[in-house]
Amino acid sequence: MKVDINCDMGESFGLYQLGNDEEMMKYISSVNIACGFHAGDPSVMRRTVQLAKQYGVSVGAHPGFPDLLGFGRRYMNCTPEEIQDYVIYQIGALREFANIYGVEINHCKPHGALYIAAMEDEKIARPLLEAIAQINDQMIVYALNNSAVVMVADQMGIPVAKEVYSDREHKNNGFNVLTRFGPTIQDFEAAAARVVRMVKNGKVITNTGEDIDIQADTVCIHGDTPGAPQLARAIFAALAENGIEIVAR
Amino acid sequence: MKVDINCDMGESFGLYQLGNDEEMMKYISSVNIACGFHAGDPSVMRRTVQLAKQYGVSVGAHPGFPDLLGFGRRYMNCTPEEIQDYVIYQIGALREFANIYGVEINHCKPHGALYIAAMEDEKIARPLLEAIAQINDQMIVYALNNSAVVMVADQMGIPVAKEVYSDREHKNNGFNVLTRFGPTIQDFEAAAARVVRMVKNGKVITNTGEDIDIQADTVCIHGDTPGAPQLARAIFAALAENGIEIVAR
Amino acid sequence: MKVDINCDMGESFGLYQLGNDEEMMKYISSVNIACGFHAGDPSVMRRTVQLAKQYGVSVGAHPGFPDLLGFGRRYMNCTPEEIQDYVIYQIGALREFANIYGVEINHCKPHGALYIAAMEDEKIARPLLEAIAQINDQMIVYALNNSAVVMVADQMGIPVAKEVYSDREHKNNGFNVLTRFGPTIQDFEAAAARVVRMVKNGKVITNTGEDIDIQADTVCIHGDTPGAPQLARAIFAALAENGIEIVAR
Amino acid sequence: MKVDINCDMGESFGLYQLGNDEEMMKYISSVNIACGFHAGDPSVMRRTVQLAKQYGVSVGAHPGFPDLLGFGRRYMNCTPEEIQDYVIYQIGALREFANIYGVEINHCKPHGALYIAAMEDEKIARPLLEAIAQINDQMIVYALNNSAVVMVADQMGIPVAKEVYSDREHKNNGFNVLTRFGPTIQDFEAAAARVVRMVKNGKVITNTGEDIDIQADTVCIHGDTPGAPQLARAIFAALAENGIEIVAR
Repeated sequence: MKVDINCDMGESFGLYQLGNDEEMMKYISSVNIACGFHAGDPSVMRRTVQLAKQYGVSVGAHPGFPDLLGFGRRYMNCTPEEIQDYVIYQIGALREFANIYGVEINHCKPHGALYIAAMEDEKIARPLLEAIAQINDQMIVYALNNSAVVMVADQMGIPVAKEVYSDREHKNNGFNVLTRFGPTIQDFEAAAARVVRMVKNGKVITNTGEDIDIQADTVCIHGDTPGAPQLARAIFAALAENGIEIVAR
Repeated sequence: MKVDINCDMGESFGLYQLGNDEEMMKYISSVNIACGFHAGDPSVMRRTVQLAKQYGVSVGAHPGFPDLLGFGRRYMNCTPEEIQDYVIYQIGALREFANIYGVEINHCKPHGALYIAAMEDEKIARPLLEAIAQINDQMIVYALNNSAVVMVADQMGIPVAKEVYSDREHKNNGFNVLTRFGPTIQDFEAAAARVVRMVKNGKVITNTGEDIDIQADTVCIHGDTPGAPQLARAIFAALAENGIEIVAR
Repeated sequence: MKVDINCDMGESFGLYQLGNDEEMMKYISSVNIACGFHAGDPSVMRRTVQLAKQYGVSVGAHPGFPDLLGFGRRYMNCTPEEIQDYVIYQIGALREFANIYGVEINHCKPHGALYIAAMEDEKIARPLLEAIAQINDQMIVYALNNSAVVMVADQMGIPVAKEVYSDREHKNNGFNVLTRFGPTIQDFEAAAARVVRMVKNGKVITNTGEDIDIQADTVCIHGDTPGAPQLARAIFAALAENGIEIVAR
Repeated sequence: MKVDINCDMGESFGLYQLGNDEEMMKYISSVNIACGFHAGDPSVMRRTVQLAKQYGVSVGAHPGFPDLLGFGRRYMNCTPEEIQDYVIYQIGALREFANIYGVEINHCKPHGALYIAAMEDEKIARPLLEAIAQINDQMIVYALNNSAVVMVADQMGIPVAKEVYSDREHKNNGFNVLTRFGPTIQDFEAAAARVVRMVKNGKVITNTGEDIDIQADTVCIHGDTPGAPQLARAIFAALAENGIEIVAR
C-alpha cells in the first residue's frame, strides 16, 4: 500500500519569505511549485527545483491567477483562453528550471482560487486540462474526489491523482472546506490517524459528521499550516506504522 | 549570399496594442518574441508564435528586465543570478508555446536595457549566456559586432549571429546608437541600400561619417519605427535585386 | 437646461498609448482619470490632470481593480476592506497631482468590473462609497439609474450624478449593456439624438425596444469607441441646437 | 537635548509579512511608511497609519522604485520626470490614509536604491525634492550628512533632518555603509552608546576607524535588523539615561 504526500512550495517572493520548504521536503514525495503569478519568482523557482532534486521529491507545477497582491486566493473572472494560456506560460517557465536540473514536471496542481474554481466549474476545469493536454497528456492532475476536474480529465484521458487534505475538513460531497484561516490543529496524531484511515479504508468523517467514501491517491499538507512540520512528522510516522509507503505517483 | 531579417514582436499587453506584427511577418525570416517581463502576455505570446509558424518565420526569445512600466528600457541593477534566472524563466515560458505549435526557439535576443547592458558589460553578458547554455547551447544569440556578448559567447562556444540595424545609426566601435526616439527615416531606399552594403560589402558609414567594417548576419527592423512596413518592403526589394536571400540562420 | 459630458481618460501606460485624450477634452465637461491600477501611470496621470486644467474640464477619479493585464475588466473577488482601501489609495494618488495643479477631485466613477459590480451589488457599492465618504462626502459619485450605488449613496448622503451612455444600449432596468465589444455606431446623429432625448425628455429606447424613464445628469462617451471624436462632435452640436448647456455638476 | 528615532514600516505585502511594526512603534518617534511601489499595499498602509496614530508616532512617506520583486533595492535608470511623478503618486496615496486618520505627512524618506542614488547624485536628489516642494515645502526630507539631498534641499529651502544609522557603519564622508546583509549586531549596548555619542557629541567612528563629525537629527533603526526590538530598547534606555528626549521633528 502506498500514497503520495504533496506540499505547496516556492511561495516566497523577492525578499518575502513564506513556508518551511527545506524542512517539509523531508516528509513528502511530491512538491507543487509556485510559478510566479500568485507567488514565487524565477530565483525561488530555481532554488525549489534544486531542493526537490536534492531530496528526491517529484516536481509538479502550481499555477495560479495573476494576482500576487491577493496570493491567487481571489477568483478572477478570466476567459477560458486566458486560463489556458496562463497555465501554459507558468508550466513552461517552471519546466525550463526542471530541465536544467534534469527533472520532469510530473504533475500539475492549480493554486487557490483557480483550484477551487476548477474543481467546482467545468468551464474552468476544461481550459486548465486543455493546457495540460497540449503540454503533455501524461502529466498527472491533482483533483478533489467527485470534482469537475476529475470528470473532464476522465473524458480527456488525462491521469488524475485524487487528493485529500491532512489539515482541512472535508465536505460531504468529497470537496474540501478550504478557508484561508482554518482552525489550528491541536492533535497532530488524530490528524495523522485521519490520513491513515483515508488511505487505508477510503473513508473520512466530514465537517458535518458524516462518514463518506473518499479516494486518497495524494495527501496535501500545507507548509504554512501552524505546526506543519510536526503534522508532517506525525503523518510520516503513522503511515510507516501502518506499512503505507510514501511515494510519488 | 544570404542574410537573416529579424523584428521584435509580441509586444502588445492585454488591451494595449503595439506594432504591426502580421504585416511585418511578410518581410522577415526571424522574430524575437517578448516574454511577459517588459511586454507581451501569455495570450499575445501564443498568437505571435502561431503567426510566426503560419508565415514560416523562425522563432526567438526576446527576454527583458521585469519592468513593464518602463518597457524594459531602463537599466535595473540586478545580480548575475537574477539576470540568469529571469532569462531562463522567460525563455521557458515562450518555449512551452513554441512546443505546442511544434516549433523550436532558435535564437535569443535580449531586449532594450538588457540588450545594451549585455553588449557593453561582460558581467551582464555572462549570466545571459549562461542561461542560454543551460537551456540549449545550440541556441543562437544575436549580438552587436565587437560586443561583450560576442566575446563571451565565443569563449563558451555559443553560436552568435552578428546583428546590424536598418533603422539606427552605427557607432565607430560597431555598436549602435540606440535611442528611444531616433530620427524619422525619410528615404527608405537609402536605408535599404545601406543594409545591402552591410550584407554584401561588410561596410557601413557610422554616425560620425567613418566607414567601418561590420558583419551583418542578421538585420533588425523595429516594428514601431515610423514607416516600418515601407522600410521592410524597401529592404526586401533591395536584397532581392542584389540576389541576397532572406533566410533564418 | 444642462448636462455633464464625461469621458474616461489617462488610460495609457508607459509606452502603451490608448484613447484620443486631447481631442476628446474639447467636447466634454468632466474627465474620469485612471489611477494606475487597471491603467494609467504616475506620468500619464500628471499629463491628464494638466490637460483637464488646460481645457477647463472637471476632474474625477476612475479607480479600478488591480489588474493591468485585464484592464480592470475582470471581476476580482476582493473583500470589502480591500475595495475600500484600493479606492482610497487610487483617489489619493490622483488627488496629489490635482492639488499640484490647483484643481479638485470633484467626482469618482469606478472603472470596468468594479463599476459593474458596484452597480449590481450593494456589498461592493458600500465599501466604494465608504471610501468616498472618508475622503470627502461632497465628492459626487457617478452611478447608473436604479443601481445599488444610487441606493447606498442616498442612504449615506453622498451626492450622485445619474449616468447614461451615448455609445451603449440601456437595459430595461436602467442598467447599461456594457460589453467589451459593442456594435460599431453607424449613425452618429442618431446616437446624438438619443442623448438629447435622454437629457430633455428623460426617456430612452432600451435594447429590447421598450421606452423607459431615465435620468441623465451625466453622459458618458468612451474615448476608445470607434469614431469617438465624431460622436462627441455630433453630441456637442445636438445639445447646442437644443439649448442644452454642457457643464460639470 | 532631543533626537528623532525613525523606522521603516508597512513593508508587508498581501499575505507576506515583514518586520515587527507594532513592537517597534513603542520605541520610535517617526515612522517611514512604504507606499506600494517597493513594498506595502493599500491595506497595510491603512493599518500602519492607524498604528502610528495609536502610538503617537509622526508619519512620513517612504517612496521607492517601482520594483516589488527587488524590494526597491535595485537602481532603476528612470528619468527625473519619472522619479518626480513616482514620488508624488506614492506620497499622495499615503496622504489619503493619513487624512482619514487626521494625521499629517511630516516627512519623506526615500527607500533603498532611491535613497542611495538621491544621496549620491544631484540628478536624482532634485526630482525627489521637486516632488516634495510641489506637495508641501514644509515637509521635512531625511538625508545623510553631506549628501546631494542636503545640498539641493538647502538651495530649495526644504527642511532637512540629518540622518544617522544605529545599525550600519558610517563612511568617512558621512555616508552610510548600506549593504543588504550587514554584520549581525552582537552588542546592543555598544550600538546604543554609539547613537548617544552621535547625538550628544556629534561624532562617530567610521568603518575605517576615523572619528568624524556627524549631525544626528534623526536616528534610523531598521525593523528587520536581527534583534531590532532589543536594539531599540537599548537605544531607548541609553538616550533616557543621558537625558535625551525622543521626539519627532
